[in-house]
Amino acid sequence: MALRFTSEQRLDDRVLERGFTLGEIPGFLWTPSSAAAPTPLILLGHPPIGLHTMYPRLVARARHAAADGFATATIELPGNGDRPLWPALEEARAELRRALRAGEPVGPEIIDPLVLPLVDTAVPEWRAALDALLALPEIDGPVGYSGGIISIGVRLAVVEPRIVAAALFAGSFVPRAIFEEARQVTIPLHVLLQWDDEGNDRQAALDLFDAFASKEKSLHANMGGHAGVPQHAADAAGQFFTRHLK
Amino acid sequence: MALRFTSEQRLDDRVLERGFTLGEIPGFLWTPSSAAAPTPLILLGHPPIGLHTMYPRLVARARHAAADGFATATIELPGNGDRPLWPALEEARAELRRALRAGEPVGPEIIDPLVLPLVDTAVPEWRAALDALLALPEIDGPVGYSGGIISIGVRLAVVEPRIVAAALFAGSFVPRAIFEEARQVTIPLHVLLQWDDEGNDRQAALDLFDAFASKEKSLHANMGGHAGVPQHAADAAGQFFTRHLK
Repeated sequence: MALRFTSEQRLDDRVLERGFTLGEIPGFLWTPSSAAAPTPLILLGHPPIGLHTMYPRLVARARHAAADGFATATIELPGNGDRPLWPALEEARAELRRALRAGEPVGPEIIDPLVLPLVDTAVPEWRAALDALLALPEIDGPVGYSGGIISIGVRLAVVEPRIVAAALFAGSFVPRAIFEEARQVTIPLHVLLQWDDEGNDRQAALDLFDAFASKEKSLHANMGGHAGVPQHAADAAGQFFTRHLK
Repeated sequence: MALRFTSEQRLDDRVLERGFTLGEIPGFLWTPSSAAAPTPLILLGHPPIGLHTMYPRLVARARHAAADGFATATIELPGNGDRPLWPALEEARAELRRALRAGEPVGPEIIDPLVLPLVDTAVPEWRAALDALLALPEIDGPVGYSGGIISIGVRLAVVEPRIVAAALFAGSFVPRAIFEEARQVTIPLHVLLQWDDEGNDRQAALDLFDAFASKEKSLHANMGGHAGVPQHAADAAGQFFTRHLK
């Protein structure tokens, strides 16, 4: 798929933001203005609520990474934002909302049709984005993956050898099949867990962390709900990438 | 109890080490040579294997803290090192070794007589050390506590208001009574857990972390056994104290 830049703006003296399309998929690339040599790249994962909604948080992460000398990029998830509506995804979301409202347990019959099709569709798109981004002269390996839907991060860590380190956010429901894939992950991992995350099963997150085969993996658990990740936890993730991508 | 300096040496241009006795208790104080103003203090906890054995590791921690602008101090635990033998402690240790060799579960009948008398005796001694150290012109509050027997750290966090932040190492057996005390801890905590610690119960460590009432608490779990704490985990503990003691 061809990458075509659609917009360009300097966020300040330090970061250049370029909007792009990859085929029909919208995305952003942020590069540190100061970079003399090609810079390592961090793919910024995000929750399935659309790039427009996520934009301020993504820019904050991009600025932080640029200060550490990293380029960052992201693409829209299938069925989200300006991409075509995906009826099966909408149905699966409605089913999850119904179960949460009813106070029912969220089991595989809800999680699997919600998450697995997203993973199956998104992962090849992120790999295609990687092909296109690494072809740019200003971007270089190695590549990190950070945040977003943890099941996408797990699959990418298994199938994409150019990703050498991942900071994962244990903050979404994980299909059983992904636990099996986790046993094949061997790259260094930095796993963030919000101890009282309302949209997450703490024991499942601990089990998933245990399942990873990586020799270097760290679990950073902090107080608070899904959106309450403290600044020092973001700083620690930055240090993790500095250790592994430089 | 009176603090009397017994030795003094510069470890290099950066750290001054002074041996002392507090009554009959031996200890060390390390201060950054560069410090112009009174410096905050971190009490360095350590496992009950004697200060002589721990010395190289304590000096490494003291150098690290001095580079961050902190004074550090430690005292010998009762029944350890050059302090008088404590027969009840030796019996409790022999009982633990016997159970571990026999592959028996380590229950309260072994943990409580091993740990609770140490906590009951050591905590007033560490508080007396704090009285003496804070009376020195070069030492100032606030005070942090770091590492060592986690039950001592928990008790100190409950009873000693001058300790405003603690980095605890979930690497030793914890009596049930200490879980109850943990519910009274409200200071910021940074808890380190070695995921495959052979001398520690992982689930108990997670339960203890859950029990703390602190609004700011972070659990940092890393791969490896008891002695395998990675350097980046030590760095993260240093950053925790920089956030809370400065």
